Amino acid sequence: MQQRPTRTVFFISDGTGITSETLGHSLLSQFPEMRFRHVRMPFIDSDDKAKDAIFRINDAARRDGVKPIVFSTLVNQVTADTLRQAEAQFVDLFLTFIEPLEMELGMKSAHTIGRFHGGADSRSYTQRIDAINFTLSHDDGVSHENLEDADVILVGVSRSGKTPTSLYLAMQFGVKAANYPLIPEDFERNRLPQELSKHRTKLFGLTITPERLSQIRQERRPNSVYASADNCKFEIEAAMRLMRREQIPFIDSTARSIEEISAKIIQDIRIDKNGY
Amino acid sequence: MQQRPTRTVFFISDGTGITSETLGHSLLSQFPEMRFRHVRMPFIDSDDKAKDAIFRINDAARRDGVKPIVFSTLVNQVTADTLRQAEAQFVDLFLTFIEPLEMELGMKSAHTIGRFHGGADSRSYTQRIDAINFTLSHDDGVSHENLEDADVILVGVSRSGKTPTSLYLAMQFGVKAANYPLIPEDFERNRLPQELSKHRTKLFGLTITPERLSQIRQERRPNSVYASADNCKFEIEAAMRLMRREQIPFIDSTARSIEEISAKIIQDIRIDKNGY
Repeated sequence: MQQRPTRTVFFISDGTGITSETLGHSLLSQFPEMRFRHVRMPFIDSDDKAKDAIFRINDAARRDGVKPIVFSTLVNQVTADTLRQAEAQFVDLFLTFIEPLEMELGMKSAHTIGRFHGGADSRSYTQRIDAINFTLSHDDGVSHENLEDADVILVGVSRSGKTPTSLYLAMQFGVKAANYPLIPEDFERNRLPQELSKHRTKLFGLTITPERLSQIRQERRPNSVYASADNCKFEIEAAMRLMRREQIPFIDSTARSIEEISAKIIQDIRIDKNGY
Repeated sequence: MQQRPTRTVFFISDGTGITSETLGHSLLSQFPEMRFRHVRMPFIDSDDKAKDAIFRINDAARRDGVKPIVFSTLVNQVTADTLRQAEAQFVDLFLTFIEPLEMELGMKSAHTIGRFHGGADSRSYTQRIDAINFTLSHDDGVSHENLEDADVILVGVSRSGKTPTSLYLAMQFGVKAANYPLIPEDFERNRLPQELSKHRTKLFGLTITPERLSQIRQERRPNSVYASADNCKFEIEAAMRLMRREQIPFIDSTARSIEEISAKIIQDIRIDKNGY
């Protein structure tokens, strides 16, 4: 069987290109047999940059011997029209939907690029920065101060995914997420640390399979009791017993991405700071 | 003039709904005169959940007296078809592009939802977690250890945006981003801290207007010398002089979002860990 050529894929945007890449990537992942080479081209906001992009696209077409795919979230229709001249399959993730929306809403769109980014001085920007600072100063139980300001307090054994999840909640959703480790002393007493029990409604647990936990801990402290299969199994079982007893909702982080865990927590505790 | 009714907008996904919301939000921001009420509905991955969604959409249609708008990144065509029965303007951010891509690539798509999320056990997941851990342990110059492992080292005066940018670089791009404050002692000597000068090629500067810096610092330490307009002006000017002298590329974070700053840094230093 003849091998399919590698396609070059361009993610083009007048902004960061992150949305273009995220959606483009998920579309391409529906074609697992294909091989793609990804090129991100953010901030294509002038005619010169558009022409440079065309040059690179056409160059890839020649090299690959097959048309590249261009995913665009360009807001500027003139730039988008210029780019359509490239030798590529042009997938317009933005303008495709503007016309139907104009019809439905009964008005013309503003076609302004600035609005795409979300201003750095907007309320939600300050909120995100505040949330990140809060989360950093309440990582891994380092501070009990102002815990009443937390929107959510993640609990779980060491290395169950609390820190990255807290940071993502703060960064993406502007949520003040503290996190607090459950440690062997808590299991011996079989109750929550005192600082936490008064914030019970804000608690959310993360769990993980003992196998995966042991694997992660091995990387940090090879051949330690801490990382041993027996100890991981003991800690996880004790943590789950404790969370059940205290009626703390929890989810398994093992097979989930940070984004998924965070979205599930947001959904569950129904906090949503970025509603506009 | 009659006031336009508020429209309810649903962001529906079988995954986190983050892509649906990001792209939907940027599309709607092209209609600044309209008022929208946002509802995120992630993890719509069963017929029951789809029916529940229809119920909520139709309820909003009745309440608002106008059709809601539904942004969907549903991968499952059956679920998407079910949802199309709701009384809404259905904007399909995903399936709209599958058919043209199938044509261009000459094959059927897999139509699998799992692929949408990016597996938690993938290489890039581990890379992101490693990057987050690295960034956390190299925040604000707290450690010089393993600085040679950094992909980038952000420098700038206190409160110029280094920490959120470093974290975003790690979280979104899997980039190991350390950050290091430039302090009055550095300006007096007018040279870089010794630990940094050997990593000069990895340095990237953040600057900010003195007015904005003073405003941010006032929130933290009201009426301090640290936050005073004069001191902020002095620090910024000294930092820019130092960065120019040392030929460190830098950008102004004042009017930019964390995403924009990060994307510009990635573009400039041409590190890109998430290429797949």
